[in-house]
Amino acid sequence: MPPATIGVDLGGTKVLAATVNGDGDVGARVKRPTSTDGPEAVAAAIAEMVRELGGAERIGVGTPGFVDSDGVVGGVPNMVGWDPPVALRTLLREATGIPHIVVDNDVNAGALGEAAHGAAVGYPDALCVFMGTGVGAGLLLDGRLRRGPRGLAGEIGHLVVRAGGRRCGCGGRGHVEAYAGRAGMEGEARRRHAAGEPTALIDIAGDDRMKSSVFAKALDRDDPMAHELLGEAVEAVGAAIATAVMLVDVSVVVIGGGVADKLGPHLVARVGAAAAGLLGGGLAVPVVPAALGDDAGVVGAALLARGA
Amino acid sequence: MPPATIGVDLGGTKVLAATVNGDGDVGARVKRPTSTDGPEAVAAAIAEMVRELGGAERIGVGTPGFVDSDGVVGGVPNMVGWDPPVALRTLLREATGIPHIVVDNDVNAGALGEAAHGAAVGYPDALCVFMGTGVGAGLLLDGRLRRGPRGLAGEIGHLVVRAGGRRCGCGGRGHVEAYAGRAGMEGEARRRHAAGEPTALIDIAGDDRMKSSVFAKALDRDDPMAHELLGEAVEAVGAAIATAVMLVDVSVVVIGGGVADKLGPHLVARVGAAAAGLLGGGLAVPVVPAALGDDAGVVGAALLARGA
Repeated sequence: MPPATIGVDLGGTKVLAATVNGDGDVGARVKRPTSTDGPEAVAAAIAEMVRELGGAERIGVGTPGFVDSDGVVGGVPNMVGWDPPVALRTLLREATGIPHIVVDNDVNAGALGEAAHGAAVGYPDALCVFMGTGVGAGLLLDGRLRRGPRGLAGEIGHLVVRAGGRRCGCGGRGHVEAYAGRAGMEGEARRRHAAGEPTALIDIAGDDRMKSSVFAKALDRDDPMAHELLGEAVEAVGAAIATAVMLVDVSVVVIGGGVADKLGPHLVARVGAAAAGLLGGGLAVPVVPAALGDDAGVVGAALLARGA
Repeated sequence: MPPATIGVDLGGTKVLAATVNGDGDVGARVKRPTSTDGPEAVAAAIAEMVRELGGAERIGVGTPGFVDSDGVVGGVPNMVGWDPPVALRTLLREATGIPHIVVDNDVNAGALGEAAHGAAVGYPDALCVFMGTGVGAGLLLDGRLRRGPRGLAGEIGHLVVRAGGRRCGCGGRGHVEAYAGRAGMEGEARRRHAAGEPTALIDIAGDDRMKSSVFAKALDRDDPMAHELLGEAVEAVGAAIATAVMLVDVSVVVIGGGVADKLGPHLVARVGAAAAGLLGGGLAVPVVPAALGDDAGVVGAALLARGA
């Protein structure tokens, strides 16, 4: 008998697929680098992973980009070889032969996972922030994922925190993601290094992608630029959290994603302090680390397949 | 037979009460200056206004401050002689002898009015901004007023739009209200005038409260400081709107309140342009003037009394 549900977390660099039971427990996992040969190749790889896991009755997939209700993906700058719109659900149905497939945004999936089985359990109103290459968030209001009429809800990466500030990957200025996304932090480090400022970040990373672990190592070496960039990231995410608390009123904030995982609970505590400083008085909310780590995406994707 | 429902809009300077039918049509109106002798005197005055209107089966009241589900009002800096918490619903029941009374925040009431019978009709997801002495907003999500677990939702007056910027009445820095609230604008004009900068705002207002009409007149005279303050107000509200669109995704933004009424549709168009500039691309939403004017509060309060 095939396992009931497989959750798939599709990312720019890797794909994680896993069987997930109704209690949110993760069984077998498979992991692969993401194919750079375009959407058909990605769908074929996911179909193979599903077969490796013994097949599925239903599949939930979290993917970068905006996803409409037909599982069509738009705007995915992090996926090599994708030319949106990509009819990912249709491609996956063809590749797997499984009709019951749900596709949604990866951050929404992660937020659902943390809400149902992770750090936001018991909080119907929660903001789940994921800090990775970019910065995104899923917003749970009254126990339901807020999507909004255009699916924009939770796009905290593009909130303006410094008017006229650092250029964001989207072209805007002063956005959270420009300060707190791994790519924005790397871009700034390389600009400053090119302008003559030494930093352990470049010594460690060289010409390779400046992974979160590079920042962790540079902080261990007390590199001034790494400390400064992290401080700006903390302030930016803290400001976005303060904004979300005032605007929609949440009871808890969960911080996850690769940058948060690698830079540890210390980052989370500092983000919480930054938000509390802006909110003042009795308005601060608990800011806690995500509980599911890399599994948040597959657990949430499985929930989506189950109709969450 | 008494009219079914009376809506009351309680403000810092005046009280408006009116009969409102099920279609949101306003019948008879009475208006009084707000008593400065404390909550009991305000309740007695409202009871008298209700009698003047012929009595009511049920009363809805919008009041400044945070209001809990028992109709107890906290934090009302604009109400002279109030020492929160104020059990306003209990006081009103005693003063009127009418048991069916609902009390909620004035901005929530105004937003409900605009949503059901004003400029946000047909938009289940709307942000209704009211610019007066302060700046507040009501947030309609999926056709329902978002209150949040602590009743904070929609507090856009205290979003940070300029890190470390102008001091807000609440003590924080760089909040929307510091730039776009009438009180914040007056405070800045008086500080700059005291520091030697001439302005028609002071010539017109003298030592009196700098009402919205004073700003309108100074703008007509092309006063540079008035233009500058209005420009900052536009930028601040535009930034708050862009933030709300990204964070919760609304389909329309309604701008109302005394400042917006007096400074006209031109202000609204400029706020819309500021928000669109920050949002970029295809993300801008229509920003439109409120449709109900001074009646938004009583219409919304009547809806609250009917169980909205």
